[in-house]
Amino acid sequence: MSLELRRRIFDELDALVLIDPHTHINPHAPASSTLADILGYHYYTELAHSAGMPREEIEEPGLDPREKVRRLVHQLAPLDNTVQYSWLIEMCRTFFGFQDDYLTPDNWEALYDTAAARMAAPDWEDEVLRRSKLEAVFLTNDFDDPLEGFDTRRYVPCLRTDDLVFHLGRPKVRERLEKSTGQALRDCRTLRHALGKLFDRFTKHGGKACAVSLPPDFSPHKIDVSDDVMSASVDKALVHLMKHNEESDEACRRGVSHFVFWTLAEMCREYRLPFDLMIGVNRAVYRGGVYQGQDLFDSRVSLIQYRELFNAFPEVTFPISVLASVTNQELVAYSWIFPNVVTHGHWWYSNTPSFIEHDTAARLEAVPRTKQIGYYSDMYKLEFALPKFAMYKRVLAKVLAERFVIDRGWSETRAIELGRQVLRGNVERVFGS
Amino acid sequence: MSLELRRRIFDELDALVLIDPHTHINPHAPASSTLADILGYHYYTELAHSAGMPREEIEEPGLDPREKVRRLVHQLAPLDNTVQYSWLIEMCRTFFGFQDDYLTPDNWEALYDTAAARMAAPDWEDEVLRRSKLEAVFLTNDFDDPLEGFDTRRYVPCLRTDDLVFHLGRPKVRERLEKSTGQALRDCRTLRHALGKLFDRFTKHGGKACAVSLPPDFSPHKIDVSDDVMSASVDKALVHLMKHNEESDEACRRGVSHFVFWTLAEMCREYRLPFDLMIGVNRAVYRGGVYQGQDLFDSRVSLIQYRELFNAFPEVTFPISVLASVTNQELVAYSWIFPNVVTHGHWWYSNTPSFIEHDTAARLEAVPRTKQIGYYSDMYKLEFALPKFAMYKRVLAKVLAERFVIDRGWSETRAIELGRQVLRGNVERVFGS
Amino acid sequence: MSLELRRRIFDELDALVLIDPHTHINPHAPASSTLADILGYHYYTELAHSAGMPREEIEEPGLDPREKVRRLVHQLAPLDNTVQYSWLIEMCRTFFGFQDDYLTPDNWEALYDTAAARMAAPDWEDEVLRRSKLEAVFLTNDFDDPLEGFDTRRYVPCLRTDDLVFHLGRPKVRERLEKSTGQALRDCRTLRHALGKLFDRFTKHGGKACAVSLPPDFSPHKIDVSDDVMSASVDKALVHLMKHNEESDEACRRGVSHFVFWTLAEMCREYRLPFDLMIGVNRAVYRGGVYQGQDLFDSRVSLIQYRELFNAFPEVTFPISVLASVTNQELVAYSWIFPNVVTHGHWWYSNTPSFIEHDTAARLEAVPRTKQIGYYSDMYKLEFALPKFAMYKRVLAKVLAERFVIDRGWSETRAIELGRQVLRGNVERVFGS
Repeated sequence: MSLELRRRIFDELDALVLIDPHTHINPHAPASSTLADILGYHYYTELAHSAGMPREEIEEPGLDPREKVRRLVHQLAPLDNTVQYSWLIEMCRTFFGFQDDYLTPDNWEALYDTAAARMAAPDWEDEVLRRSKLEAVFLTNDFDDPLEGFDTRRYVPCLRTDDLVFHLGRPKVRERLEKSTGQALRDCRTLRHALGKLFDRFTKHGGKACAVSLPPDFSPHKIDVSDDVMSASVDKALVHLMKHNEESDEACRRGVSHFVFWTLAEMCREYRLPFDLMIGVNRAVYRGGVYQGQDLFDSRVSLIQYRELFNAFPEVTFPISVLASVTNQELVAYSWIFPNVVTHGHWWYSNTPSFIEHDTAARLEAVPRTKQIGYYSDMYKLEFALPKFAMYKRVLAKVLAERFVIDRGWSETRAIELGRQVLRGNVERVFGS
Repeated sequence: MSLELRRRIFDELDALVLIDPHTHINPHAPASSTLADILGYHYYTELAHSAGMPREEIEEPGLDPREKVRRLVHQLAPLDNTVQYSWLIEMCRTFFGFQDDYLTPDNWEALYDTAAARMAAPDWEDEVLRRSKLEAVFLTNDFDDPLEGFDTRRYVPCLRTDDLVFHLGRPKVRERLEKSTGQALRDCRTLRHALGKLFDRFTKHGGKACAVSLPPDFSPHKIDVSDDVMSASVDKALVHLMKHNEESDEACRRGVSHFVFWTLAEMCREYRLPFDLMIGVNRAVYRGGVYQGQDLFDSRVSLIQYRELFNAFPEVTFPISVLASVTNQELVAYSWIFPNVVTHGHWWYSNTPSFIEHDTAARLEAVPRTKQIGYYSDMYKLEFALPKFAMYKRVLAKVLAERFVIDRGWSETRAIELGRQVLRGNVERVFGS
Repeated sequence: MSLELRRRIFDELDALVLIDPHTHINPHAPASSTLADILGYHYYTELAHSAGMPREEIEEPGLDPREKVRRLVHQLAPLDNTVQYSWLIEMCRTFFGFQDDYLTPDNWEALYDTAAARMAAPDWEDEVLRRSKLEAVFLTNDFDDPLEGFDTRRYVPCLRTDDLVFHLGRPKVRERLEKSTGQALRDCRTLRHALGKLFDRFTKHGGKACAVSLPPDFSPHKIDVSDDVMSASVDKALVHLMKHNEESDEACRRGVSHFVFWTLAEMCREYRLPFDLMIGVNRAVYRGGVYQGQDLFDSRVSLIQYRELFNAFPEVTFPISVLASVTNQELVAYSWIFPNVVTHGHWWYSNTPSFIEHDTAARLEAVPRTKQIGYYSDMYKLEFALPKFAMYKRVLAKVLAERFVIDRGWSETRAIELGRQVLRGNVERVFGS
């Protein structure tokens, strides 16, 4: 009974046309060209490496896509239990008519060719979007990305600000900022001005959010540059940074980070953009790892670190992603109390069924239904939205069936309506698309 | 099968007459007068505010109860997924014959009038207790509450000590303490004497517990005032506090806090009272929040902070509530090892079905059955015990059915007996009522 | 349907012959002699003590085994809900034909006699291993254990190094080290040499792993004694330690600890042994507790503390046990990213069904299948493997049935194959037995 109920709820949710509120799609090459684009996703390369494949085999310079796929396919068996592997098989079955349960040294070549042929069709991008029932996807744009040459209603710009908050000590980053804004950086006033220009440009091109990922020890505090002492202190830190670059001392870097972060929040207020915070990642923990497969986390993080921020910006909506499921209860509680805090998807190491189930259940039963954005794919290529959203929708259907219809006596209709709202309605509500 | 099993176990548990071992009931006005007492509960006001209702609309001075209900009802739709909303509907259905699934702008007025009429009946309090199968409820008394004019077997006094531990820097608190004990405060000796008088009075009036809520960074340690140096240090801190009040320095405040806390534990030993510790709350995190809707937490807390306390007071029973579900495994382990540590209910942000299920399952399978107090309502008005205990009993029945009868092959009778013990038996055992 | 499926998967898993990769078996007395060996296990003594039995009654010097059992049996009722109690009943039923659900003052004597008689049979050890389907068990050897007089293919030596890492400040430990290696300790060079001799001897006797348990605040870092300054510093700390013993200062102790730990990792690399890390225990938290019933934990620990270690030793496999379930997601993520990190069993306070279920599900869906060692018993007497592994296999079958066959559409065969690999195949793969 419960399984049929789950299936019926899933089918209703699966009929929705969606907006994906966080991806890494390149709007100029949104879909894959070969299976190498699929298997090159860090989830596969890092798991294959973790299971024993040397990084050099994966990242050999100039490696032919077909050879790359051949090599990876030979290392997939140890991963075939993972949910990431299930995404792969689901994609291959849905998009390329693959019939098997495993991708193996014996069957990959035919699939490679089929996929390459379909991907070469001029309407492949549209086909993927159509079959994935995707209406729009949000991008993750560098601050100096040209926002032209693509349909910004389909590929919605978002200003990603990690470089600005954490890497202004790199001359290259400062140059890019100066160049893209036409503003020479000298002090906190000019830096603020440059940031304002970015928001101008992004919102003019249909930008819908500002986003940043943050390490576990980050704890923002107000830098008030209308205060002369504080302003002089930021100026000094910035000058030091511009002189010493990546050798600048920690206190100066941090001072600039906090100034930039706080200023971004002010800009979000001024330009009425939500500020997506992705909390908890430590970068480059495994230095020998593959590209994008080096980051991990310290689960000892608390949203209490954001107390001052949430209080200071009641007008800014903060869609919050937490990396560790152990932080989910705090996210539930902070979203239940703070009007400007919203739950946002299931990020990275928490994006597997058992953590999604645990975290979704807790959110659905205690956070106002209008304040939950169910899911985003975080994908780099369009083909991934389908299996990732399907995974989420299966878990969501399970939670709605078991914990709402069965445990709480809800009607199916009511449960489905809640599912629709977190899947689609709230994306529009929060990001105003 | 499993659902029928859950239902049968639930029905047996639901037949029990209960004692509620922690509430905020006012014994002189235990039941509600209008629906405004129900909807004014912070769970509704804070969720409505979180979903967009301005605090000013909720807390307008002199607001008529009917108008308050009208305003809140118009903001309930975004909360109708929450378990807190389900309490509201269950109360309205059980007590007032409400038939709908939602409380809306269209149906609230009739309900308001029906409720007001029933609440006005002279036996409403008895009626609520009878239908809720409640025999007694524990109170949360300020140290200077007069403990007279009510039946202390029905409304059992408990000495709440947050003010004493954390707010002796407020002149008002010291005045209340001096006045209620007839003891002028000068030094640690007189302060200790005053505390003793409180315990005298509370136990004479049938008081059954001492309680305090504690922030995540609190870590008690022994203050031994038989040691002259330590005694002089506490005296000095206290004098400083009495002079500077809320401007006194942090170290002095903390010194006094630790002295008072440790002395309370000594008094619990002397007067044979359990000491309820409610661990993990940060007060006033969201300063713009509604009344009682400002507190949150930092889940980075550990029971290792209470190591010295648990070792020093083997004769005192510590019923422990933890605010965060991530601390539950520590609570299980500490209760499994320390004879004087007992699990106590599901507190606040952990009082939702998915956390209760997770935490209850872990406790039932590893903590001696005699050392688990299943639930308390934490209610401010009597009507809330029914839906809150019902929620708990449904989860408890689910865990007993799935994890004991099905997974471990227990008989239904055995599972029900365990449920009875954590619901009722242990309350009597621990609090000696 | 789901229950039959679980049963079928369990039956297949239960047919496997196993290797138990972590126990505390004494190879010279591996099985029990009387029920006192069973009930004397700290899980029963500590729970009985926690439920009210004085330590003195349990640990009375010279206590007769029969009397010890009699006393404990009178205190078991409060524990009869625990999963530990279910191990006891399952052992008694399987090995001694016990028919009841409870062990009580009325039925224990007959059981005691039956058990004693069977345990006295000359083939009792073999019988237990045969019925438990155990082929080999790993030991936990002190560094100076004689590794002779037993079959090291059945009882596989493992070098336990807590004493070396944390207690070189005890003269007794240094004497044992000097005596067992014939190497006088003077400086880091001679200490390193002594450690090398231990690895020589252990690997010559079939040793398959080095192991250590670590407190939550331990964070290893490289001590490079080819660096003269660092080498001199370790020498100085060691000399200080040898002079002041347990009164030596904290910094010196810690310096020696870190040197020994890092050197052990180097030895594991040199001798190609996995290094089992058991992370998160605080020793002697409850000082009044029974033997082995005093340790607890602080769940505020992170694998980020091991970042430098995991990066420095890509050639060493680290099977990791975490004490707290809240650390499990980090363990999943670190095993998913680092090739040399492997998940290892469900340790101690996480070794109860609800935590195993939660932790196993997360591992199976995101860690390569080759990198998960499902379970070890941690037992002191052979009889415990059967009920403990049975508990694990029931949970594993539940997770495979519900989350793989039902939720992900796997065939039963595929699910069973995954179960087999984590139960048995990976033990051989990782420990090379």
